[in-house]
Amino acid sequence: MIYEKVLKNPERFNFGIETVGKPSHPNPIKQNRYISDNERIAFSSQVVNILQQIESCEKFPSFEKAGMREKLAHNPKNTKAAIITCGGLCPGLNNVIKGLVSELEIEYGIKNIIGIRYGYLGLSKKSSHEPVVLKLAHIDQIHKQGGTILGSSRGNQDPVDMVDQLVSRNINVLFCIGGDGTLKGAKAIAEEIKKRGLKISVVGVPKTIDNDLSFVEKTFGFETSVQVASDIITSAHTEAICAQNGIGIVKLMGRDSGFISASATLANSVVDFCLVPETRFQLHGNGGLLKAIEKRLEERQYSVVVVAEGAGQHLFTEASERKDQSGNLMKEDIGLFLKQQIEEYFSTKEMEMSIKYFDPSYHIRSVPANASDAIFCYQLAAHAVHAGMSGKTNLVIGHWNNFFTHVPIDLATSERRMIDLDSVLWKGVISTTQQDNHLEIK
Amino acid sequence: MIYEKVLKNPERFNFGIETVGKPSHPNPIKQNRYISDNERIAFSSQVVNILQQIESCEKFPSFEKAGMREKLAHNPKNTKAAIITCGGLCPGLNNVIKGLVSELEIEYGIKNIIGIRYGYLGLSKKSSHEPVVLKLAHIDQIHKQGGTILGSSRGNQDPVDMVDQLVSRNINVLFCIGGDGTLKGAKAIAEEIKKRGLKISVVGVPKTIDNDLSFVEKTFGFETSVQVASDIITSAHTEAICAQNGIGIVKLMGRDSGFISASATLANSVVDFCLVPETRFQLHGNGGLLKAIEKRLEERQYSVVVVAEGAGQHLFTEASERKDQSGNLMKEDIGLFLKQQIEEYFSTKEMEMSIKYFDPSYHIRSVPANASDAIFCYQLAAHAVHAGMSGKTNLVIGHWNNFFTHVPIDLATSERRMIDLDSVLWKGVISTTQQDNHLEIK
Amino acid sequence: MIYEKVLKNPERFNFGIETVGKPSHPNPIKQNRYISDNERIAFSSQVVNILQQIESCEKFPSFEKAGMREKLAHNPKNTKAAIITCGGLCPGLNNVIKGLVSELEIEYGIKNIIGIRYGYLGLSKKSSHEPVVLKLAHIDQIHKQGGTILGSSRGNQDPVDMVDQLVSRNINVLFCIGGDGTLKGAKAIAEEIKKRGLKISVVGVPKTIDNDLSFVEKTFGFETSVQVASDIITSAHTEAICAQNGIGIVKLMGRDSGFISASATLANSVVDFCLVPETRFQLHGNGGLLKAIEKRLEERQYSVVVVAEGAGQHLFTEASERKDQSGNLMKEDIGLFLKQQIEEYFSTKEMEMSIKYFDPSYHIRSVPANASDAIFCYQLAAHAVHAGMSGKTNLVIGHWNNFFTHVPIDLATSERRMIDLDSVLWKGVISTTQQDNHLEIK
Amino acid sequence: MIYEKVLKNPERFNFGIETVGKPSHPNPIKQNRYISDNERIAFSSQVVNILQQIESCEKFPSFEKAGMREKLAHNPKNTKAAIITCGGLCPGLNNVIKGLVSELEIEYGIKNIIGIRYGYLGLSKKSSHEPVVLKLAHIDQIHKQGGTILGSSRGNQDPVDMVDQLVSRNINVLFCIGGDGTLKGAKAIAEEIKKRGLKISVVGVPKTIDNDLSFVEKTFGFETSVQVASDIITSAHTEAICAQNGIGIVKLMGRDSGFISASATLANSVVDFCLVPETRFQLHGNGGLLKAIEKRLEERQYSVVVVAEGAGQHLFTEASERKDQSGNLMKEDIGLFLKQQIEEYFSTKEMEMSIKYFDPSYHIRSVPANASDAIFCYQLAAHAVHAGMSGKTNLVIGHWNNFFTHVPIDLATSERRMIDLDSVLWKGVISTTQQDNHLEIK
Repeated sequence: MIYEKVLKNPERFNFGIETVGKPSHPNPIKQNRYISDNERIAFSSQVVNILQQIESCEKFPSFEKAGMREKLAHNPKNTKAAIITCGGLCPGLNNVIKGLVSELEIEYGIKNIIGIRYGYLGLSKKSSHEPVVLKLAHIDQIHKQGGTILGSSRGNQDPVDMVDQLVSRNINVLFCIGGDGTLKGAKAIAEEIKKRGLKISVVGVPKTIDNDLSFVEKTFGFETSVQVASDIITSAHTEAICAQNGIGIVKLMGRDSGFISASATLANSVVDFCLVPETRFQLHGNGGLLKAIEKRLEERQYSVVVVAEGAGQHLFTEASERKDQSGNLMKEDIGLFLKQQIEEYFSTKEMEMSIKYFDPSYHIRSVPANASDAIFCYQLAAHAVHAGMSGKTNLVIGHWNNFFTHVPIDLATSERRMIDLDSVLWKGVISTTQQDNHLEIK
Repeated sequence: MIYEKVLKNPERFNFGIETVGKPSHPNPIKQNRYISDNERIAFSSQVVNILQQIESCEKFPSFEKAGMREKLAHNPKNTKAAIITCGGLCPGLNNVIKGLVSELEIEYGIKNIIGIRYGYLGLSKKSSHEPVVLKLAHIDQIHKQGGTILGSSRGNQDPVDMVDQLVSRNINVLFCIGGDGTLKGAKAIAEEIKKRGLKISVVGVPKTIDNDLSFVEKTFGFETSVQVASDIITSAHTEAICAQNGIGIVKLMGRDSGFISASATLANSVVDFCLVPETRFQLHGNGGLLKAIEKRLEERQYSVVVVAEGAGQHLFTEASERKDQSGNLMKEDIGLFLKQQIEEYFSTKEMEMSIKYFDPSYHIRSVPANASDAIFCYQLAAHAVHAGMSGKTNLVIGHWNNFFTHVPIDLATSERRMIDLDSVLWKGVISTTQQDNHLEIK
Repeated sequence: MIYEKVLKNPERFNFGIETVGKPSHPNPIKQNRYISDNERIAFSSQVVNILQQIESCEKFPSFEKAGMREKLAHNPKNTKAAIITCGGLCPGLNNVIKGLVSELEIEYGIKNIIGIRYGYLGLSKKSSHEPVVLKLAHIDQIHKQGGTILGSSRGNQDPVDMVDQLVSRNINVLFCIGGDGTLKGAKAIAEEIKKRGLKISVVGVPKTIDNDLSFVEKTFGFETSVQVASDIITSAHTEAICAQNGIGIVKLMGRDSGFISASATLANSVVDFCLVPETRFQLHGNGGLLKAIEKRLEERQYSVVVVAEGAGQHLFTEASERKDQSGNLMKEDIGLFLKQQIEEYFSTKEMEMSIKYFDPSYHIRSVPANASDAIFCYQLAAHAVHAGMSGKTNLVIGHWNNFFTHVPIDLATSERRMIDLDSVLWKGVISTTQQDNHLEIK
Repeated sequence: MIYEKVLKNPERFNFGIETVGKPSHPNPIKQNRYISDNERIAFSSQVVNILQQIESCEKFPSFEKAGMREKLAHNPKNTKAAIITCGGLCPGLNNVIKGLVSELEIEYGIKNIIGIRYGYLGLSKKSSHEPVVLKLAHIDQIHKQGGTILGSSRGNQDPVDMVDQLVSRNINVLFCIGGDGTLKGAKAIAEEIKKRGLKISVVGVPKTIDNDLSFVEKTFGFETSVQVASDIITSAHTEAICAQNGIGIVKLMGRDSGFISASATLANSVVDFCLVPETRFQLHGNGGLLKAIEKRLEERQYSVVVVAEGAGQHLFTEASERKDQSGNLMKEDIGLFLKQQIEEYFSTKEMEMSIKYFDPSYHIRSVPANASDAIFCYQLAAHAVHAGMSGKTNLVIGHWNNFFTHVPIDLATSERRMIDLDSVLWKGVISTTQQDNHLEIK
């Protein structure tokens, strides 16, 4: 097809673009870096193809490509697989479960699949919940439900105990669906397995509704979340425009990264201020948020503010060091804080005003996956099965430049991915909110 | 950020994946080609980065990267832009219109933007519909509506006439949102402009609900369409399971490519047969569809069939050569044909049965864009504006390996993109439908 | 509460309404009959209360009130109940099933409940499908699914055979959920039971998506259907306004009555013509539909037509006498006929035009019940259980003036309920479509 | 039609119901009052018809029937109408506005219609917002949007001032869309008008999302609210079942009456406890809520609690006497209080547990009306116009026993309508939640 044609005649496919004349006017939009006509996007992201004429591709940063291998490390005839879901809910968990079972049962002919109940807790000896047997015929409709049929819990358990359980249950491949904390737990399990010299694969399917995993461009559930967040923004906008000086504040998920907030803002371009952890803002003074909101109210009598839960943490004077059960640093509630600050600020002014606060996170994360996420979940699951069966371990299935990849857990959890402030996404946010005209970000 | 870190130490980022042992068992799944561990996905798809050490990147197939240029060919102070939407409806048209106006007005400060009514017809001298003035403040909520506020029409007009109109209206940049036919029309306009030596940019925003444009991975409206199609499949499934030997048939868009059908099938994995233009199937005989449906009914008393409108055209004996107004070859109606053939086949059997036929295409294409498409539309629009302002012409804005690209119209319309039968998408369809177990595709 | 207060002091509650002056201007709206200030709505629709002072309420037309009786005809300790769903799908079937099981099991403590598969077919000796045991714990989530978990079929079976089956399975109460044909079947069963002197109650829960049952104001699934129909009308409107002289035609359910069409038209007031079985219209000539559509196109370049499937049957010259399996007279397809007639009419005119045809009936009837219907289904089911347990038979549960009633099957199926052309509903349709200004209804 | 047939032969329409035998078993369900077979529902709720043979209908409690009158008090040729929306948002406000304008402009031919901005504030001399001119052509699509295009505000203004404004603007009919407080304001306006001997009609369209207006069975927006609330309950249920001992708490609107909570609970029967203002419950002790939740967790590891905002106010020791701007008594936040109490109670137990709290009120009230509400809004508006034009004043349009009625404002606002604990609605809630088995309501 196209692909082969291109690779046979690479020169023919370096498409020049016609112009109507030599560009001579300076661009009125100020940028750190403009794109040059010489910057190019490789037709193929598959290094082995691009660099086939070159001695070695090893010096080029790249990922192992995910997919079906010719040889397997586990004999499908007697492989037993286990699936576990951990951490907070995220649209698509059931799709991943169904995808794993479907691929294992239908494609690899594996009969023995169990689901661990309530996260790592169900894999510890103290659990009172026996695993459930998973058969495709019984879970055929779960892709239409939110949540996870296996249940979930936060927090890790002792890896020694958990590996004991895997051994006593004869598990060969363990699929861990979860976020940063879960994956660190999976890594601990994989290391304990290695220490004991066992042949058990541990494969992670990364779940972070915030879409903030390092070296993974996109995680499941994210698009669905943005859709629901965008609907809530419509409600906040409706409330705001229907009151004199109405202000709608929507707090969205995003502990360390503002992807949901930024994406929902761009999807539903009725937002005036989008506050994310990646940028700092001040409340008071001329370049501050409060003054900026006041200006908006003067201009058009209403304002809509979207704030990620991790934004504005620098505004809290006492550094709180609380952690939740998964070991995540607990954030101060920026949403309620903003609401209170705005109320206080305007209480001194003589004006009618009305603030409506929305905190829809639990609703957003509980809905079923939309179609795009459903497809993505299935594909993640299929690649996780291929990886597990071929003996890969201590990895997660990533997605990069439109390909599914193998990413070491260590790398994926090395740091949180954050919005690049020069990216197309954030530039879009700045342009549609025009918040920079008002808000001086320091 | 991550990016720079990687590029500084490329060797450190060639991630090997641990294994639990040497793979030795043959994979039970038969494949033309398995993935090798040596196949790798480049960290960066930006050739200029990957290949910076190498003499010349010109021999590698690549696209010009879209984005904001430092110098412009049109002076924003006196640029006048026109927007036109052509062809069938597609979710997101209004988002693209709003995005273009927003970027032109807010970012480039352009005051003079008009919308041509009813496609190319509105750009011909015979049109009775004057263009409308487009101001962001007036179209602020159009992203929530399906359709296009400008109206649309099929078919091209005389390029000489259309360029006359552009000239007489002092247009400097023309944005054409439309599919294959529209883009060919845009190319004709661009060529006439070139012939006359005029300085008018013609930039295409590709619109094909079928997602079948060559050298463009993804087009707007596609994800929304798959979502609605997936909902209709749920209805077809409900109808099928509620009747003895119930059969639900859903005909979906897809004249030359089955992307919507395949994606909706994977998103809502209750489908038994997914028929697309890329594969041939026979109706009769042991490997035929009718026998395969019969087997499914025996196994579980119902069956769900999804068929793309362009599938099975080989079954029509008389090659019809009708064309619609845009010059597309008109297809025989495979949906109704299948319905009739299935009815006929089972009428000879002594069995209760019930066939329900769904043809939701006009509904699907009329809905507003979902959040993902809304974001994508905005970004396409922003890149189209950057391209137009920098003087690029005779191109469309593409998307490739996660980057926005410049693609010559000629190339984008050179052939239709089709489902790769070895792709992750199609393999998923085969696995979830298990149609190969029943249906021998010839 | 209020109720008792009112009944104690009835005189106090004959509320007069103040006026600003004596009405003297003639109403510009022509009506057959205006409302007089003396027409009053009884506070209570319960005859026994209103008329308690009067000798006998028997001469006033009234229904037996549904609800829990003090004495039962069937001993709950050894009652066995059966549930059956027949005919076409309708939103809420699963809610009624869950409601029946819930009320029987939780409230009456009945352990023995079965579901007959695939309608009356499953109650005939030729059926190969055994009934299923119904326990609330197993069907706890079915209210979220469209369709019926029991399956359905059209057509009646021999009542002698069916009563044999009821006897051999020791059924004491049979709940039949279905429409006109089903209820006539239920009546035949009840009569056969009576003939044999058996103590088996037959209780109907009326299901007609068209809402056209006689002496029953509202049937379940109707509101949900109107909601989905209204969404499809939005799509038709979008298609129509986006084309030059675009015409959107939506065919909706309604064989003998246009309730869905009229209600959806009033709910989504973008419709120009609403054609229902209750009115006749002509196609040709000055007062005809085609001319009327042409006038609308001249006025605003688009037109939306909603047509009930039973409308315009007088236009078909040859009286077709086909019947479907349930014995319903099969209608000619007015939707496709209109589409063709409109195409033909305008083909002679020199004008751009575009017709989009929508036939969403199978989709509409397959969706889950909305909240209102869900509540209504539960309440119908509870009242059906009360009726059955108290020994009532050969009846359906109706709804009248906001109360649940007992209606003899004979009466409910005596004729089809149709839109009263003087009703608030139809007047609203005429006002929002303004179709009378264009279309002379003969 | 049927109606006339019945009234001609009333005796024929006193439908007896067959029974399978004399009821003899005691009903196992304990009730205060069972239904007797002699209780009957009048065929017609129109007193004038029922009682036409009887000397006088005046002693029967009844409402004036709404509808079009033959004579008008205002000459449509020079009538000027004003519309105002007050108080909190409610689905359907825009539908009522469109309905009023449509009926006034299309049916009565009134050209002069204005919309007052931001509630009563816009009718006071201190307002800086001029009224807007309302034309049907300009507001043709507003029925698809939530909120009110006119804006709203809480609180009343000086009636003397407001009547001055009405006079100076030559308003003849004022339509006030609002709740209890608004209607009391409307009454004050009507009384001031009467005092001055002016000929200005004041007609209320009652808006209370809680559906708690006295002598009015149903208010607009309620069904839509129940739908959205029901969706949120699904999310709470998902969160609850996915955690070990997961508890989902949903706080819904309902200051004095629990209609939304009860209806949503019945619509989505996955709720364990439905707490409304009409019942009292205790937290502690054997019959208390906390113990009851604990029992549920033991039985099935999760629990879903729905609580109306006005429930459990007796639990707050210090009677708070705060009032909001509309004069409504402000409630203590029972939702957060419950959450905290539950956390505290279980913190002493050694058990994994997870509480998720949902407060979706602002989202619920901001969505567009669903189809049923859209129809209802249109009909309310049409009847309001008929009432206003015929000179009625100081009234609201009610709905009673399926008819639209005229209700004096005084009566409608005399007290709050509350759930009758013997009603079909509440019995359904008790049956599906089975909360009485656990929770002893005191």
